[in-house]
Amino acid sequence: MRGLAMLPAPLLDDLIDRALLEDLAGGDLTTEATVEPDTQAVGRAIARSPLVSCGEQVFARTFYRVDARLRVESRVPDGRAVTAGATLWVVEGPARSILSAERVALNLVQRMSGIATLTRRYVEALPPGSATRVVDTRKTTPGLRALERWSVRAGGGHNHRDDLGSAVLIKDNHIEAAGGIRAAVERARARAPHTCRIEVEVESLEMLEAALDARADIVMLDNFAPEDLTEAVRRARGRALVEVSGGVTLERIAALAATGVDVISVGALTHSAPAADIALDIERLG
Amino acid sequence: MRGLAMLPAPLLDDLIDRALLEDLAGGDLTTEATVEPDTQAVGRAIARSPLVSCGEQVFARTFYRVDARLRVESRVPDGRAVTAGATLWVVEGPARSILSAERVALNLVQRMSGIATLTRRYVEALPPGSATRVVDTRKTTPGLRALERWSVRAGGGHNHRDDLGSAVLIKDNHIEAAGGIRAAVERARARAPHTCRIEVEVESLEMLEAALDARADIVMLDNFAPEDLTEAVRRARGRALVEVSGGVTLERIAALAATGVDVISVGALTHSAPAADIALDIERLG
Amino acid sequence: MRGLAMLPAPLLDDLIDRALLEDLAGGDLTTEATVEPDTQAVGRAIARSPLVSCGEQVFARTFYRVDARLRVESRVPDGRAVTAGATLWVVEGPARSILSAERVALNLVQRMSGIATLTRRYVEALPPGSATRVVDTRKTTPGLRALERWSVRAGGGHNHRDDLGSAVLIKDNHIEAAGGIRAAVERARARAPHTCRIEVEVESLEMLEAALDARADIVMLDNFAPEDLTEAVRRARGRALVEVSGGVTLERIAALAATGVDVISVGALTHSAPAADIALDIERLG
Amino acid sequence: MRGLAMLPAPLLDDLIDRALLEDLAGGDLTTEATVEPDTQAVGRAIARSPLVSCGEQVFARTFYRVDARLRVESRVPDGRAVTAGATLWVVEGPARSILSAERVALNLVQRMSGIATLTRRYVEALPPGSATRVVDTRKTTPGLRALERWSVRAGGGHNHRDDLGSAVLIKDNHIEAAGGIRAAVERARARAPHTCRIEVEVESLEMLEAALDARADIVMLDNFAPEDLTEAVRRARGRALVEVSGGVTLERIAALAATGVDVISVGALTHSAPAADIALDIERLG
Amino acid sequence: MRGLAMLPAPLLDDLIDRALLEDLAGGDLTTEATVEPDTQAVGRAIARSPLVSCGEQVFARTFYRVDARLRVESRVPDGRAVTAGATLWVVEGPARSILSAERVALNLVQRMSGIATLTRRYVEALPPGSATRVVDTRKTTPGLRALERWSVRAGGGHNHRDDLGSAVLIKDNHIEAAGGIRAAVERARARAPHTCRIEVEVESLEMLEAALDARADIVMLDNFAPEDLTEAVRRARGRALVEVSGGVTLERIAALAATGVDVISVGALTHSAPAADIALDIERLG
Amino acid sequence: MRGLAMLPAPLLDDLIDRALLEDLAGGDLTTEATVEPDTQAVGRAIARSPLVSCGEQVFARTFYRVDARLRVESRVPDGRAVTAGATLWVVEGPARSILSAERVALNLVQRMSGIATLTRRYVEALPPGSATRVVDTRKTTPGLRALERWSVRAGGGHNHRDDLGSAVLIKDNHIEAAGGIRAAVERARARAPHTCRIEVEVESLEMLEAALDARADIVMLDNFAPEDLTEAVRRARGRALVEVSGGVTLERIAALAATGVDVISVGALTHSAPAADIALDIERLG
Repeated sequence: MRGLAMLPAPLLDDLIDRALLEDLAGGDLTTEATVEPDTQAVGRAIARSPLVSCGEQVFARTFYRVDARLRVESRVPDGRAVTAGATLWVVEGPARSILSAERVALNLVQRMSGIATLTRRYVEALPPGSATRVVDTRKTTPGLRALERWSVRAGGGHNHRDDLGSAVLIKDNHIEAAGGIRAAVERARARAPHTCRIEVEVESLEMLEAALDARADIVMLDNFAPEDLTEAVRRARGRALVEVSGGVTLERIAALAATGVDVISVGALTHSAPAADIALDIERLG
Repeated sequence: MRGLAMLPAPLLDDLIDRALLEDLAGGDLTTEATVEPDTQAVGRAIARSPLVSCGEQVFARTFYRVDARLRVESRVPDGRAVTAGATLWVVEGPARSILSAERVALNLVQRMSGIATLTRRYVEALPPGSATRVVDTRKTTPGLRALERWSVRAGGGHNHRDDLGSAVLIKDNHIEAAGGIRAAVERARARAPHTCRIEVEVESLEMLEAALDARADIVMLDNFAPEDLTEAVRRARGRALVEVSGGVTLERIAALAATGVDVISVGALTHSAPAADIALDIERLG
Repeated sequence: MRGLAMLPAPLLDDLIDRALLEDLAGGDLTTEATVEPDTQAVGRAIARSPLVSCGEQVFARTFYRVDARLRVESRVPDGRAVTAGATLWVVEGPARSILSAERVALNLVQRMSGIATLTRRYVEALPPGSATRVVDTRKTTPGLRALERWSVRAGGGHNHRDDLGSAVLIKDNHIEAAGGIRAAVERARARAPHTCRIEVEVESLEMLEAALDARADIVMLDNFAPEDLTEAVRRARGRALVEVSGGVTLERIAALAATGVDVISVGALTHSAPAADIALDIERLG
Repeated sequence: MRGLAMLPAPLLDDLIDRALLEDLAGGDLTTEATVEPDTQAVGRAIARSPLVSCGEQVFARTFYRVDARLRVESRVPDGRAVTAGATLWVVEGPARSILSAERVALNLVQRMSGIATLTRRYVEALPPGSATRVVDTRKTTPGLRALERWSVRAGGGHNHRDDLGSAVLIKDNHIEAAGGIRAAVERARARAPHTCRIEVEVESLEMLEAALDARADIVMLDNFAPEDLTEAVRRARGRALVEVSGGVTLERIAALAATGVDVISVGALTHSAPAADIALDIERLG
Repeated sequence: MRGLAMLPAPLLDDLIDRALLEDLAGGDLTTEATVEPDTQAVGRAIARSPLVSCGEQVFARTFYRVDARLRVESRVPDGRAVTAGATLWVVEGPARSILSAERVALNLVQRMSGIATLTRRYVEALPPGSATRVVDTRKTTPGLRALERWSVRAGGGHNHRDDLGSAVLIKDNHIEAAGGIRAAVERARARAPHTCRIEVEVESLEMLEAALDARADIVMLDNFAPEDLTEAVRRARGRALVEVSGGVTLERIAALAATGVDVISVGALTHSAPAADIALDIERLG
Repeated sequence: MRGLAMLPAPLLDDLIDRALLEDLAGGDLTTEATVEPDTQAVGRAIARSPLVSCGEQVFARTFYRVDARLRVESRVPDGRAVTAGATLWVVEGPARSILSAERVALNLVQRMSGIATLTRRYVEALPPGSATRVVDTRKTTPGLRALERWSVRAGGGHNHRDDLGSAVLIKDNHIEAAGGIRAAVERARARAPHTCRIEVEVESLEMLEAALDARADIVMLDNFAPEDLTEAVRRARGRALVEVSGGVTLERIAALAATGVDVISVGALTHSAPAADIALDIERLG
């Protein structure tokens, strides 16, 4: 995971503060009533089933925002697969603050680790030595895109374009509006930043030919039958990158990759990953 | 779904605006390049598999925030089960604005309908005539709690407490910190608002007795064995509401309800519901 | 005041930053012109009349947000009654920063201590040994509810429900809309979270009977005549908690409590408490 | 009240949205459960005691932000004194939305009308024909300064400087830091915008002389004894505006004004005004 | 300017509201005091010198946010060159609101039109028929990037990448950190989204060769001498897009374009464009 | 620059965070791919041409917000003129964080130093010993007013009023609406805070007489011919401060000041200052 940087603090603080206020704006009735202010505790985040760990920076920052006296230590770097029972992160300090922040921290890292874990399964289903990328889509949770794209990378996947302003992806509606593939690609090339690749979604070999003739940089094959897929890859080779999307499952991914496509995009990585099972075991100190 | 009100506009606008900026702050390169400003279109949100519809207000508001000239019509009220192919909502107006808002609107309603659909499955798995409630937990997506609690209600479930300031739920850590169940319940009763019920999580029949003796209003039976569960319900009857939590699955829910528990809480309703499959079919007008 | 926790930092920072920008966004002309950047000073917050101190965390955070080099020390914990002349909190560091933050800090703690002081007067007016609670209402200053509820607790009072999503309180308008008390309570019980108590506002003994028959958890007696109040408490005993509201004054509170009511709610605690008289005495150092 | 403009929408929306979220972020359990979505109602804001009305724009905007279908009509302009029983404003539309917004709207206008009412009492206590101004201070509720200054104007008072960047007010601490009144005034005049007046707080006739010699534009007499006050006004006439502050009460204000001071500043107008008693009477329609 | 879409409302509202609050949070003393609330007026935005018009949507939205009763009409589309005296936009409605919003609206459109005007001068300095693009950089005003990129397009220029997440641009520091051009390009290609082009900044013909060998998609020639520039373009032809940056002036641009480079990037378009001279002539109505 | 204070942290953080998110919300693709997380570096901000340095606090805070481990040292105080090649500020720490924050930090300080530099040129163009002030206007960049006013002060200029709520400036439209200069000034004096000066814009000697008769505190001479200007100054002496505005250039400023005017306001200081040329030279450590 050498490539993982830190998420910028202003972005993290903004979403973490909102999450905390959603749960804590009215106080924590239970903790305030039952736990003394000077009680110290340690909390250990434990994987309760095998998973790919993700969210160390978010975990630490959530506790820190609730109480700057809390100290968090990471035991496992993001992107590492662990077995059930592994300790991922440890937080220590005032028991009240740990209890009040616990749920928000877990909600975030369970989602992140869930996405990393599902992504890893897709990546490991690729044929050995495959050069095909597994990538996410813009089907992310509103407000959490940066965290989810990070989680996909931690899982071993790659990211697709970040947002509507980062790259061009021409779909059937755009093609119809522009009056054909050639016109659509030419307009996009004339107007979009020269730093963007231009991708065209195609649904048939005829459309593929048109996209290649228009010098699209990437072609996205949407729901191609297996035999057409092989032919499409053959035709596109050397002329454009080939992305496959639509109905991709863990069962089909090896066969898809075997056709030699460059990229397989999977919406389920972010829109349907089940939460990873992580619990916080809290122990009173002193 | 007679009980569903509107979500307050300030809450919706805040989260929708953030979601839109996440995707649109850099503009929509493809649409700006390929679609003329005066092209009109209609978009139909179609269920691509059977689902419980949820999100009409959010869908409309998302398009409206991008372009106040767009008009949205709802064909199916929140909470209605539909078959594949059903048209849920229709948006009409400038094609550019529909295309630019499409992904954010779908991301929101796919999540909401996914939760409503999963909740409905749990509710329908209860024995006929059962008085047991299926409820959510605080394991919601950070930033989207209000939408997700709404979706649970649309699916036929009920909500647990909204946040840490709405009710008291005493867990093992609180009990340890307070020096026993009786002390914890008494402190909570002495300090929490008189409008809150006091719930205690118990892990054995002994703890249950202590909680009932302390006059807890609700007892949460955590991971009880089936035989203990029946005994627990018998003892608590007339003294406290009984909630079951932990490891609840669709397969087990009928048996759990048959014991006569009042409430079954299911974290998976919100943390692991797969997105419902909804697409926007866009047709150019004129 | 053993039960007082810390207010969560994101909530505090948000409101303190707004308060500071309201006063400081255009700079501090006077201080910038007349005080050298390296002048050091100490400021002592002094009670100028007897009061119940409240706001130590807010006081410290306000100065800290203006200048992280300032150090604040608390001399009196929240909820402690002090005499005129008492030193409550001390801030030390660059004189410019102390002068620029002074007014905002005082505005906040004068309000908080004012509420705590007024609440204490109500609480102390209860008969000796009374089990009756003095509680606040939702008649709080917009934007400052969390601080004001905290202040009520510091004064020895209790909180009513935090917001419209925390508990059910059925008023006459709801009763009319639902078609009667029984229908209203049943609908609320059927739909609200099982963690909420259900309270009904009643204006006569007949309505009280209806509310008790419907198994309301709490009845609020609104503007009852003294003789009816006694009778109402007699009837409700063992069936529901009894809250009194409307026209409660310091003069009447002992008599109200003597009837045995559980709760007396007083809107004036937050909507009409005069500010406590606290000044910041600043002394130049060095 | 010819001089009252509208408050700018961005400022209002921001504070009203926050106030609404504080109360409504978790939904309105009672209303959702008991009131049908299609029930229509009218709500009349009624003065329950004599008061000076203030807040028509805020009242309307609060309801509008909850539900854009609500229509609000103002019966009484801001700044008008009314008797008990007067109808101030009327809102009509969906009953649910009226009930959910009621408390926030009332909390705002009760505070605003409370300030306007108290200010009017001070203004009316001035001797007939007096040219003396009653002005507010920066002792406003954090987050609500613009509303409170507006309310003071509606009550017939005037505003002091808006914030630390609007004008110069040199206090004793500034004088000490600058090394004397002359140095302080000269520095301020050299650096502050030429559009600002320069005010100096003085505590004795000696300090007054120094301030006048330094050509202060305004002198603030802090806690002067009555005889010194008369002498101070005599000396300052024609050389500087004279403001009196500190310990001003309704009882003393006529005597203070009779000395011929230009301005009397009263912190209590905003920090200690009791809420005006305004209720919303809701009637079901149809 | 067929390609200009609308900027998304949430983005505009956020920045316009902030700009308005910066100027109006303390009210508009002058207008409130001197203009009657019912005075109507029309304001005409007039070009006082030749310019390329830009900002119609922003102009309208600013007035609308201050007062929804104001109506704005655009006379000139964004991107049109006009002579001195041309009327660009017209606003009509309450005079107070026009006066209070005037400065903020002008500050925005003067900047936008200034950028469009300067960009147009660069574009028109290209040789006739040139295929070279004039593009902006990330040297934009913090907080206004979307408006400024829009203005560059209105002026006939193109945009470079939107932000650090939209495309890869490898500079000398990155090359040093990665251990050479080849390693840097390979790492970027292995990790960045497949939708991004990879650009490398080079300072010599040797570095150019290395970048081309590493299959960079774009090479940026930084401060090349004229003779090297011609040679660089010759070598890169067919292998990578060529961008020139550094020290580009209006005088040099024709010569640069004549070398056949694809893209010339000019930081001054956004960081040093003087404001266009636009005034609002206000006429009282009725 | 003894008078320069610190800008308040809440104001800085808000605008810096927004600027960072504008550039970094999608991550930094290049740096993440090519630079190792543990690489350390030092960055030196170098003046590439003579300039007046401004922005040390903003520079430091920008890097700190991206990564709290970065340490920034200032070599030159704000307001100091430096020659080309001077090192202004130095940042040291993780190379990734320096690279990711570089552009935003430079965009801010280049603008600030550009304004300070241009202001200094105007100030130095005044006749030796002149008492005339060079002041800014409200023609600032939306969202950056506080920074730009600071920069003007650093350059040796003074500020005009901060915003519409800080002082009164009556223009021709206000005069027309009020029915003449006398009426406008009297209304303003009757209503505006006593801490504000009242300024009137005049376009002829007749208007000047009217303004002086109405006892305006400041008169602004708009586009007066040179001979009228001298006469105007003569007439106003001892009765009002005199400000000149409109079409002020570096060439004209000495002559304007020689007439004895008190204040010359120059919109170009903020709306048309070219960015100062500052680069960040980054060197890898270790």
